[in-house]
Amino acid sequence: MNAPDSGARPDLPPSLVAELRGLLGERFSQSAAVRVQHGKDESYHAAMPPDAVAFARSTAEVQAIVKACAKHRVPVIAFGTGTSLEGHVAALKGGVTIDLMGMNKVLAVNEGDLDATVEAGVTRKQLNAHLKETGLFFPIDPGADASLGGMAATRASGTNAVRYGTMRENVLGLTVVMADGSVIRTGGRARKSAAGYDLTRVFVGSEGTLGIITEVTLRLYGVPAAISAAVVSFPSVEAAVDLVIETIQSGIPVARIELLDEVQMDAVNRYSKLDYPAQPTLFFEFHGTEAGVAEQVEMVRAIADGHGGSAFRWASKAEERNKLWQARHDAYYAAIALRPGAKGWATDVCVPISRLADCISETKRDIAESGMLAPLVGHVGDGNFHLVYVIDPESGNEIAAAQRLNERMVRRALSMGGTCSGEHGIGYGKLDFLEAEHGDALGAMRRLKRAFDPDNIMNPGKILRL
Amino acid sequence: MNAPDSGARPDLPPSLVAELRGLLGERFSQSAAVRVQHGKDESYHAAMPPDAVAFARSTAEVQAIVKACAKHRVPVIAFGTGTSLEGHVAALKGGVTIDLMGMNKVLAVNEGDLDATVEAGVTRKQLNAHLKETGLFFPIDPGADASLGGMAATRASGTNAVRYGTMRENVLGLTVVMADGSVIRTGGRARKSAAGYDLTRVFVGSEGTLGIITEVTLRLYGVPAAISAAVVSFPSVEAAVDLVIETIQSGIPVARIELLDEVQMDAVNRYSKLDYPAQPTLFFEFHGTEAGVAEQVEMVRAIADGHGGSAFRWASKAEERNKLWQARHDAYYAAIALRPGAKGWATDVCVPISRLADCISETKRDIAESGMLAPLVGHVGDGNFHLVYVIDPESGNEIAAAQRLNERMVRRALSMGGTCSGEHGIGYGKLDFLEAEHGDALGAMRRLKRAFDPDNIMNPGKILRL
Repeated sequence: MNAPDSGARPDLPPSLVAELRGLLGERFSQSAAVRVQHGKDESYHAAMPPDAVAFARSTAEVQAIVKACAKHRVPVIAFGTGTSLEGHVAALKGGVTIDLMGMNKVLAVNEGDLDATVEAGVTRKQLNAHLKETGLFFPIDPGADASLGGMAATRASGTNAVRYGTMRENVLGLTVVMADGSVIRTGGRARKSAAGYDLTRVFVGSEGTLGIITEVTLRLYGVPAAISAAVVSFPSVEAAVDLVIETIQSGIPVARIELLDEVQMDAVNRYSKLDYPAQPTLFFEFHGTEAGVAEQVEMVRAIADGHGGSAFRWASKAEERNKLWQARHDAYYAAIALRPGAKGWATDVCVPISRLADCISETKRDIAESGMLAPLVGHVGDGNFHLVYVIDPESGNEIAAAQRLNERMVRRALSMGGTCSGEHGIGYGKLDFLEAEHGDALGAMRRLKRAFDPDNIMNPGKILRL
Repeated sequence: MNAPDSGARPDLPPSLVAELRGLLGERFSQSAAVRVQHGKDESYHAAMPPDAVAFARSTAEVQAIVKACAKHRVPVIAFGTGTSLEGHVAALKGGVTIDLMGMNKVLAVNEGDLDATVEAGVTRKQLNAHLKETGLFFPIDPGADASLGGMAATRASGTNAVRYGTMRENVLGLTVVMADGSVIRTGGRARKSAAGYDLTRVFVGSEGTLGIITEVTLRLYGVPAAISAAVVSFPSVEAAVDLVIETIQSGIPVARIELLDEVQMDAVNRYSKLDYPAQPTLFFEFHGTEAGVAEQVEMVRAIADGHGGSAFRWASKAEERNKLWQARHDAYYAAIALRPGAKGWATDVCVPISRLADCISETKRDIAESGMLAPLVGHVGDGNFHLVYVIDPESGNEIAAAQRLNERMVRRALSMGGTCSGEHGIGYGKLDFLEAEHGDALGAMRRLKRAFDPDNIMNPGKILRL
């Protein structure tokens, strides 16, 4: 909808096309269908197809593709599951998109060290299925079954972050193809290191603009001895959020604490065929020993009583829990399904938890006044929440209204000490907000970008205007 | 002892001296005593005094000093408590050392958000004393009572890292004076963010080579409802390490799990007037609710029984615990005190935990064969351990032997997938090891350094050879 004008651009140089075709054969495509599919993500942002798509199967192939493109200063864009939400994969300046989903091998699982190394195209569910017999799991869970390379590149998180952290805390090391086609290995398998600059975290969250991540070494965790999930309804969003704040400030190590407002609960009930009250609701999950989980539950229950929470509705069996969390992960799709033909515009602010109730209340007041349909979900233990503006993609008025309300919300979050993105990233959708948030630090970000990618071929137009 | 030759260097330009004197008055010093004191840390590395020392009291003053030095391309070196261990503060190319200990204000404590912002010169103990009435604490605890700016700059950790992480995980944001004298603010107070490059972690661990940290925003934690500490002796180091490995692999959330070998226990007993058996020993600390701590203790006790551990000797009162951990933190001084007139050479490797027993056993065999005195302590829950080679600083033979053994140990750790530094950093003592560990990634580190500090005035000669 609001794609910047990419201007006229030259076709790919014939010698580059020949080189890539020679390298990849059928795995190099310039077909319109393949290009279009690779130019869009799940967001409202307009699609921008690349000039070609290269399907890579190894770090060496990614390296060869990048080297070939670098010679001609042709942009390269990494592509995983295409589930980003700020236009990250749009080929704003054309170029070659490198599809990494053929790199889908789990390379190593070190059970004794609680780590694994995977190729970038392995998805989070694939990894967890692979780990099934080990008693270990990888907790980071954005809504989509995203690739782990993409999750590292966008610094993803999800519902477990309040207990286990985000990709920032859970990537131990990376293999990265740099803009000049060199390959580096960052980090390592030691749990901690003070050896030199933290290149791992330079690339985590860099959205393909500094290099292309081809392998990821991740922390794993033991599957808890006991897991219990519960659903609790509240008379108001404020009451639910106040419970969250008190829980976090008390240091209770909840694994998940998710808010769905009354609009979202109605959507989830319809979409996932559930029958919870259409009221502001918290989904909890507790991890620990049997006794530890029982104790956490008692502590949270005591807090909930003080905030008018309903009785806890339990999901103790794995099957029920999976259904519950699948419903939570499908919240975005449930929201869009409320209005046939509509598209979703997902927002993503995060504030210090003491300001969360204020930020949500003021935002919901804006929505009510606007008459827009915008269900709310939140990883509220982190202070992070999302709205999905459910809009008619053909309606300029609705798009303008969503844009205006989103801008008001982001400025509100920033004024409260928060961030314009808790987990979706910047892509090309939040360039202005990044500037508003980080001000003079943008200069340092630009220095970093130019140092690693002097010709601006790595996913150009994302994160920063140069 | 092994300082690189700094070569002849010009005096500070008279106009710079005049400018800094005008700015700081008495707080600008060229006296020999002040310069010598600021050219050395606690390591065996030779002292290299700067040409002058500037005592700053604000970010604006640091900015003015850096701007003045940058005009003349004169090096600037940040100085906190001077407790680094790899020659970080040595003025290898002369220049002006900026002493930040006058920046010692706690700027904000947000109890509801579990965060605090401090000036760089605030020490960890000062912050915890300040937090006393709040029920919160900051867990990162290197041996020394270091400044929090220095701890951020060296990516420090300590005994609590196994539970709470290192400075990498616990810095939310920074104020940094860049090489050109501009000031940037990185990160923020939100618990997580996907907004742009992770500049915070670019500076954490950068040892003053990319900019000077003047303020730090930190995560805080609630003081646990229950804390219990225990000491357990083992028949061998291997038995102790095997217990550690099993504990970590079981996911028991111990707060501290520290190893001291028989040599170190003897030293600690003498230095801190304690009466533990001079055997390989683990110091534990458990944090949680009353019931949670009791459960953790039972689980660890059951594992210890299988490894020949002695009865647990408890330190339940805060006073006893403080004495125990003070003794642990004084291990370095206790080691040196074993031999009057000696100096310590502290080593610092970290390996994946499955290799820890092998790495320690092979290393102790080397020491035994060499006849050197080298007590061992370790943050073994992270796979990190230290030796202190207690050597005669005048003996070329002893220095050469320590150097040779250290090199063997670092190469061993690297071959096991470990790192050359768990927490002390690179300084100028580990330049070669960083290259051995990170290989081609050094190129990316150099790009980063040149981008942020094109004239190489920020603590030159540390982390990287350019």
